[in-house]
Amino acid sequence: MPEWLYGRHAVEEVLRAGRRKVFRVLLAEAGQESKSGRGERLVEIEELAKRAGAQIERVPAARLDALTRVGHHHQGVAAEVTPFKYATLAETVQLCREAGSHALVLILDSLQDPQNFGTLLRSSEAAGVTAIVMLDRRQVEVTPAVANASAGAVEHLQICLANNLPRAIQELQEASLWVYALQAEPDAVLYTQADLRGPLGLVVGSEGKGVGRLVRERCDGALQIPMLGKIESLNAAVAGSIVLYEALRQRTDDSR
Amino acid sequence: MPEWLYGRHAVEEVLRAGRRKVFRVLLAEAGQESKSGRGERLVEIEELAKRAGAQIERVPAARLDALTRVGHHHQGVAAEVTPFKYATLAETVQLCREAGSHALVLILDSLQDPQNFGTLLRSSEAAGVTAIVMLDRRQVEVTPAVANASAGAVEHLQICLANNLPRAIQELQEASLWVYALQAEPDAVLYTQADLRGPLGLVVGSEGKGVGRLVRERCDGALQIPMLGKIESLNAAVAGSIVLYEALRQRTDDSR
Repeated sequence: MPEWLYGRHAVEEVLRAGRRKVFRVLLAEAGQESKSGRGERLVEIEELAKRAGAQIERVPAARLDALTRVGHHHQGVAAEVTPFKYATLAETVQLCREAGSHALVLILDSLQDPQNFGTLLRSSEAAGVTAIVMLDRRQVEVTPAVANASAGAVEHLQICLANNLPRAIQELQEASLWVYALQAEPDAVLYTQADLRGPLGLVVGSEGKGVGRLVRERCDGALQIPMLGKIESLNAAVAGSIVLYEALRQRTDDSR
Repeated sequence: MPEWLYGRHAVEEVLRAGRRKVFRVLLAEAGQESKSGRGERLVEIEELAKRAGAQIERVPAARLDALTRVGHHHQGVAAEVTPFKYATLAETVQLCREAGSHALVLILDSLQDPQNFGTLLRSSEAAGVTAIVMLDRRQVEVTPAVANASAGAVEHLQICLANNLPRAIQELQEASLWVYALQAEPDAVLYTQADLRGPLGLVVGSEGKGVGRLVRERCDGALQIPMLGKIESLNAAVAGSIVLYEALRQRTDDSR
């Protein structure tokens, strides 16, 4: 079943990555390209779409409004594409073995909010993660809304759906990853005091409930982020991004 | 004009902080407390509301639905409160002088998205910022949606509306702050390589356009976050949070 991606970044990156087949690209007619947008970006997308062999149609903006849901900003562009293709756990473990000490895997335990999910994927791609592993049920999937919130980052990521998260973590550990849960708890280590160099997995839990008990028990330890104010926790996507970038800092800091 | 805050964290923190007058707290009738919620939290809120002298009413969930906009989750609770009170620039400068070398100010240049704004306020509160300074036009204000997205963090923050951002930055500089723009540009320094100890201001720009030219010219330098993938930028709230937490790391790291 094809699906409709929308938004300039999402459509541009699906064309650049070339992993999904792009059947059709719909562009808003001149003058209806959404006031927030930049005209040159649509021209660039049209060029990429041509090279990808996609059918290109200029349509009234109202047609794009009807394709996407209320509150989802298409910015004058949508693309009909094949569904997102997930990686298998075996492929993911293999990628980690190839990455060696650079392996960096984000593991998502029941993240619920598509906006948070997309934001965290965007950070993951920027921080150079090897792969994402997530549960194949009770969780957001890579929908068009997620592709949009990720600014198209999903198109460049390896994302694996696991049917048993503790077992998947075990397989990653057998491939030499040290796996931390991001979770405030009495034994948690400050994230800046942990050694995040070497093959690493980081588990981010759901917005309300954190990391599940069975998943936590399978991890090698827990990390926490200092909270200096009165609020209990950070936004889940922000927390995950901060630790991913701390890992990147430690890995690239020559002075250590 | 009183306004209606909604959501458990937003209402709990407005009561805890005690800075706004809380006239009424509406709680969903038993059994209608929203399935995602935890009953004990409503009991806690009821207790706080009593102590604050607010009028407490049990109402059908439909009444709460009607008070808040579509897609805004009230989680079974809303509170009628006085509007958010902003700090003046003079007060903010004074707070910075008192904070001395610990002064840490987040400066927002035309951030547009209430969700991003709230998320960044939540991170700011957790990272212990002294104050937030933002432009008083063309920008999101501290609306109930922002209070909600911040998990109530706004109630504990000093937020200043400035009518001229370059001038406000200049006043902060005169109070000894070193002010960086978070902006990818040829002369930008990697955020991990800059010295972020000492009195510091950090400017975060709008989601699409970054930091404005006049604001950028007033800054002492620019910081950038490494982007290892194909995507151009991080979510604005994530980017700001990463740099705030790097500042906190440098300020608390004994080994430097």
